[in-house]
Amino acid sequence: MARERLVVIGGDAAGMSAASQARKRRDADDLEIVAFERGRATSYSACGIPYWIGGAVQDEAELVSRTPEQHRAAGIDVRTRTEVVAIDVAARTVTARDLESGRTYDEPYDALVYATGSVPMRPRADGFDAPGVYGVQTLDDGRELRAELDDGAVERVVVVGGGYIGLEIAEACQVRGLDVTVVDRSATPVGTFDPDIGAFLARAVEELGIRLVLGDGAARVETGADGRACAVVTEAGTRLPADLVVLGLGVRPNVALARAAGIPLGDSGGIAVDARMRTRTPGVWAAGDCVESVHRLSGQRVVVALGTHANKQGRVAGINLGGGYATFPGVIGTAVTKVCDLEVARTGLSESEAEAAGYRFLTAHVDSTTRAGYFPGAKPMRVKLTAEKRTGRLLGAQIVGREAAAKRIDVLATALWNEMSVDEVLGLDLSYAPPFAPVWDPVLIAARKAFEAVEADIRHDARSGG
Amino acid sequence: MARERLVVIGGDAAGMSAASQARKRRDADDLEIVAFERGRATSYSACGIPYWIGGAVQDEAELVSRTPEQHRAAGIDVRTRTEVVAIDVAARTVTARDLESGRTYDEPYDALVYATGSVPMRPRADGFDAPGVYGVQTLDDGRELRAELDDGAVERVVVVGGGYIGLEIAEACQVRGLDVTVVDRSATPVGTFDPDIGAFLARAVEELGIRLVLGDGAARVETGADGRACAVVTEAGTRLPADLVVLGLGVRPNVALARAAGIPLGDSGGIAVDARMRTRTPGVWAAGDCVESVHRLSGQRVVVALGTHANKQGRVAGINLGGGYATFPGVIGTAVTKVCDLEVARTGLSESEAEAAGYRFLTAHVDSTTRAGYFPGAKPMRVKLTAEKRTGRLLGAQIVGREAAAKRIDVLATALWNEMSVDEVLGLDLSYAPPFAPVWDPVLIAARKAFEAVEADIRHDARSGG
Repeated sequence: MARERLVVIGGDAAGMSAASQARKRRDADDLEIVAFERGRATSYSACGIPYWIGGAVQDEAELVSRTPEQHRAAGIDVRTRTEVVAIDVAARTVTARDLESGRTYDEPYDALVYATGSVPMRPRADGFDAPGVYGVQTLDDGRELRAELDDGAVERVVVVGGGYIGLEIAEACQVRGLDVTVVDRSATPVGTFDPDIGAFLARAVEELGIRLVLGDGAARVETGADGRACAVVTEAGTRLPADLVVLGLGVRPNVALARAAGIPLGDSGGIAVDARMRTRTPGVWAAGDCVESVHRLSGQRVVVALGTHANKQGRVAGINLGGGYATFPGVIGTAVTKVCDLEVARTGLSESEAEAAGYRFLTAHVDSTTRAGYFPGAKPMRVKLTAEKRTGRLLGAQIVGREAAAKRIDVLATALWNEMSVDEVLGLDLSYAPPFAPVWDPVLIAARKAFEAVEADIRHDARSGG
Repeated sequence: MARERLVVIGGDAAGMSAASQARKRRDADDLEIVAFERGRATSYSACGIPYWIGGAVQDEAELVSRTPEQHRAAGIDVRTRTEVVAIDVAARTVTARDLESGRTYDEPYDALVYATGSVPMRPRADGFDAPGVYGVQTLDDGRELRAELDDGAVERVVVVGGGYIGLEIAEACQVRGLDVTVVDRSATPVGTFDPDIGAFLARAVEELGIRLVLGDGAARVETGADGRACAVVTEAGTRLPADLVVLGLGVRPNVALARAAGIPLGDSGGIAVDARMRTRTPGVWAAGDCVESVHRLSGQRVVVALGTHANKQGRVAGINLGGGYATFPGVIGTAVTKVCDLEVARTGLSESEAEAAGYRFLTAHVDSTTRAGYFPGAKPMRVKLTAEKRTGRLLGAQIVGREAAAKRIDVLATALWNEMSVDEVLGLDLSYAPPFAPVWDPVLIAARKAFEAVEADIRHDARSGG
């Protein structure tokens, strides 16, 4: 059998997981693996960049789980600072450009893994591409941003968009003693949370000393005589002076190259893949932030840019390419973040997502504590649940609280994954001891309240003949 | 309709949950509720007693979630310091003795809830009933023990049995500056953990400065001239001087009264109940530490004394007695405890339990961290999984680690409850952000390793024709 060639585009989580899994299953005599990476680093934690900027993580190298040299030693031909500029899916070749030498060359493939990740949303309005406006997507972005902050000339930072990354970067800058403002069009930060939970976040952000401009989007970036960003002007006309602007509007899948090559996208804008991570183009696989996934509750295709999915999807593609069998089972929208010591987490559908998906539902929430109320260190936490009308099926959960609160979302994510009703959740045998939970874990109390809401609604419908 | 009367025996979690739920659904004109409690307190956290003894909890009152006065104000006729000494199930009466006045009287019932809890295991050998030997089961036990420790005459404490309560009390005494020895017949403490996990516990206990005598049971208690316990002698003949002995051998269901009345017990020794918490005796319900529950994995009936089950079972009995409908779905053996800052947790079957239940299985473990490895405060944690041969069904999980490790057991408990295979667990959408987890949560890595072990075993069987 002739030796086959696997080409990977993108050297971060998804791409390198795919390459590593394929390599593990097929040796170099059987499969040659070439991985192209535009930046300098491979297999790094993009999610860790805000903490590196803030100083919680000291050294860039800590964010790298595997260097190009390590991958090469494992038999993967990693080519950094090399950008793939075109894919010819008929001829099965990619065109690569060495960013150092400028040399362009073609590389043939038998199988291709497209793992280009995502790019920050950048408004098309004036000034958003000016110097001094940063996205925080790659380690190279992070290095530039950090260098500029280390330089000491920056005093005022405006973060455009109060999503996860926006808030994390805002906190990182605040920790560095900078004057920070976050602008967001929503009424509360991180719009994927229900407004009542988002309100806790807003308060925590403001308590940190970060200014929040909410319900008002960024209209344009003003530039100074040197062409560099010097202020953000909001839609309402407020002018926010800025020595540096950071984009925190979220990301979109990096699909330009795929679109140009005719690799089909889904309605969500991400690359359409099947359960094994195959695109609709023969020989082409895709994984990571650039693909769409099935949301197991809404049944819709969604793009969720998250390192944990990227790793799993890359693994699935790699196992299949290596001759094994694996599938990616979809997502349910689990996420967690923190602002100072306030933790927030979510899984499943938010209220607005549940409505959009066509569900009718009841909600319930409980304010409890992370440990037995009498135990030292017990911290307040709120659990909010959304349950389907009639069936009581758990549709979504959100948690806000202090230390040891947010990770409890995983229990609800697992319950939701298994299509449990809130009544069934209430029966779960969860761990109990005073240092770890009240005798009724907050998760169970919330389930009990949601169940009572569902039952009351059924009784109400029965009385009203509904 | 004539007013009915509900009599409850036992005023802690199970009994008072039942009483409260029944009261919530039926008012005093419809249902009279009398609750007998031998001690002084109602609705208290027995699990909190070690922390009260150790001083983490300052005031006894903090352990009480509802006083007799509060229950009375809610329309429940609570009679404390009153022991039920007989039940006549044919005549539907109980005989009660007022422990203050010594007066004995009969009280009729239409429905009875038997919720007498558990009693500490106490070897039948010499000296175990001597003064100076304490069980720690009720708030009154705790008060006596604490008073004696406050007195200052006790210097050396021997804890007989290294189960959950044994270790918690040992730590409490050590925190008070006492010289503490724990004797246990097992090779590692808390025998419901696999020995490899128990070994971590042993080390943590010893690092605290507590002496462990393992693989050697307590044979007898020596008493002094005053008749009071002065030493524990082990089966191997070691003499451990003691000013005070604490029983930590676990508990057994308190069923003496039920047995005498002819209320049927199950094979496990607990009272046999159905899904609604009815015993096999008409009109008699039971809940809490004194009943047996269905173990959802082994299919066996087991007695698990735990406040969280007692509360749920009491609630179920009370809802049914109140005219509603609820069932208790069984247990899967979830438990958690800590020794100093070492956290251990388990769910499902241990290796020896899985063997006894007839399963064949593979195990896998992973050593990882609670947060991303590069994130400040990341602590080591080990996750061990047991998965069924061939099917890969998750059978059990154990976790040992530091802060933020043990509560992750609930994810595995929920997975196990839903009969997930380790392959399915690996697909779960669990929350990820660097302050909360590595990009592959330790739970997921463990599932991946267990899945690989199951697959390797299948390949091995196929090769060997097994």
